[in-house]
Amino acid sequence: MQQLIHEVFLPHLSPSGKAADHDGALLEVSRSKLAFTTDSYVVQPYFFPGGDIGSLAVFGTINDLAMCGAQPLYLSAGFILEEGFPIGDLQRILQSMEKVLSECNVTIVTGDTKVVDRGKGDGIYINTAGIGIREHDQTWNPRQIKPGDAILISGDIGRHGIAVMSVRHGLEFETEIKSDAASLWNPVSALLAAGIEAHCLRDLTRGGLSSAVNEIAQASGLTIHLEEKHIPVREDVVAACEMLGYDPLYVACEGRFLAFLPAEQVEDALRVLRNHPTTSNAAVIGEALSGRPGRVTLLNTIGVERILDMLSGEQLPRIC
Amino acid sequence: MQQLIHEVFLPHLSPSGKAADHDGALLEVSRSKLAFTTDSYVVQPYFFPGGDIGSLAVFGTINDLAMCGAQPLYLSAGFILEEGFPIGDLQRILQSMEKVLSECNVTIVTGDTKVVDRGKGDGIYINTAGIGIREHDQTWNPRQIKPGDAILISGDIGRHGIAVMSVRHGLEFETEIKSDAASLWNPVSALLAAGIEAHCLRDLTRGGLSSAVNEIAQASGLTIHLEEKHIPVREDVVAACEMLGYDPLYVACEGRFLAFLPAEQVEDALRVLRNHPTTSNAAVIGEALSGRPGRVTLLNTIGVERILDMLSGEQLPRIC
Repeated sequence: MQQLIHEVFLPHLSPSGKAADHDGALLEVSRSKLAFTTDSYVVQPYFFPGGDIGSLAVFGTINDLAMCGAQPLYLSAGFILEEGFPIGDLQRILQSMEKVLSECNVTIVTGDTKVVDRGKGDGIYINTAGIGIREHDQTWNPRQIKPGDAILISGDIGRHGIAVMSVRHGLEFETEIKSDAASLWNPVSALLAAGIEAHCLRDLTRGGLSSAVNEIAQASGLTIHLEEKHIPVREDVVAACEMLGYDPLYVACEGRFLAFLPAEQVEDALRVLRNHPTTSNAAVIGEALSGRPGRVTLLNTIGVERILDMLSGEQLPRIC
Repeated sequence: MQQLIHEVFLPHLSPSGKAADHDGALLEVSRSKLAFTTDSYVVQPYFFPGGDIGSLAVFGTINDLAMCGAQPLYLSAGFILEEGFPIGDLQRILQSMEKVLSECNVTIVTGDTKVVDRGKGDGIYINTAGIGIREHDQTWNPRQIKPGDAILISGDIGRHGIAVMSVRHGLEFETEIKSDAASLWNPVSALLAAGIEAHCLRDLTRGGLSSAVNEIAQASGLTIHLEEKHIPVREDVVAACEMLGYDPLYVACEGRFLAFLPAEQVEDALRVLRNHPTTSNAAVIGEALSGRPGRVTLLNTIGVERILDMLSGEQLPRIC
């Protein structure tokens, strides 16, 4: 275990070697408003087009902090390895974490590794927890959403889920569909810098767009109305969904978010987002209404309005 | 999943219900010197005399913060459940977490749950990460240890490991040996309040006393000398170790620590620790010497000095 930590983990995750002697990291944070979040990652397979469990474990927790309006600073990483997990796969995952951490200017400051017996895991599970700092006074949560708020989506949906499922089913499409996993902090901080006053931000992960808007409709006590024709989905994702029997509205993303904000700020927000590569397809897809609390309605592409339910059970297990 | 979180997790871990709508927790921390740590807990079996995986996941991370000299404030909790895990067991584990969190005045502010397929886990794994606050300027690490420093142990060793292994082997002893798992923050803060200036603190977990002193001998560049006759071990633990073929010096504890401190402060430190129930058996067990760097020597009970090696491989896998 000592050898594993010193020879495999620390060269990637703590190049300075500072973390080696301690059970915990000592941090100096210049201001006192912090955000703290955690997620475990159990995605299967752990390599997929556009990423792997390592990059996902970094992006996912960064994005939870970004959704709190907090700049991601520090992560912890806890690894649960199944006995016999190939060291080459571990190194590839650690390299991928190292790369995205560096791109995002985020540091893993504390970590832990446990090995479980063969048959008591599935190769690798990773938990990350993250600390971020909030430098503004906006409060984002579903209860801040007002009737008339516009709903903005940051990009096209469903690519992460399809990227993972295509490997799981051994499918190949004409064009490779890569996961949309990406950090959302840069576009979120650009919205803040531009003076956009959002009421709620929410990333689209497990359960996709439908689950996110259903949760928000319930928590806000409002009706959410979406127009399908405005929801960006790539044609190859639609085709893959048809082949696999999924509805893109329920397929997980790992680099997309919704912003609920006053209608008069929509144009400014779109201009800001379209300047960032990960949010260049941002679009307005609906609005919040003072209708029945918790209801989500979808005007579909042939002009019929229907109720969009939350998925019960998991359409796509172990997608993140 | 929604139902599981709202009906099972939140009543225990977020009685106020505040955590429900967010991916992350927003924290106000009054000062800026923080400690941050993480551990995953995979103990098998997940119930054992004196505790369970839930109480262990709280105490373990609290203790890592305490060893940094930080008052534990906030925890995250990530659960990986195997499909079919009994809900009654989960509730019992959550109740146990709730109880020790309340005793320790620590709050779980953010959490996550993933379910993996049957055969891809072992009932339940828990990761906790913790944030603590440091209100003093002492720096504790092995490089601060000076030749001549006394080594103090906070209590008797080996009970946690034996408690877990006795269940695993289906053994019963005349007296039930309960895990020593406990929070170390109160005695550590009492040492700080009494003005004790320790050079290094280290809790004894995987690999027990021997592994801890070997790691510290290496990191400090000093020789560590221990006297076996002063090391507190209960007779029933010695007997159980003999029966199971273990050496108590290598058996894990979850509520014990070493303090390396100037010899002239030892009496004061002992007086402070003996006032706390979890550290009432504190004892001086050795000293740091300017001998060969990284060496650990043990004067055993029959007066023979031997080298005490670090264990290679795990004597007791999945003990925490």
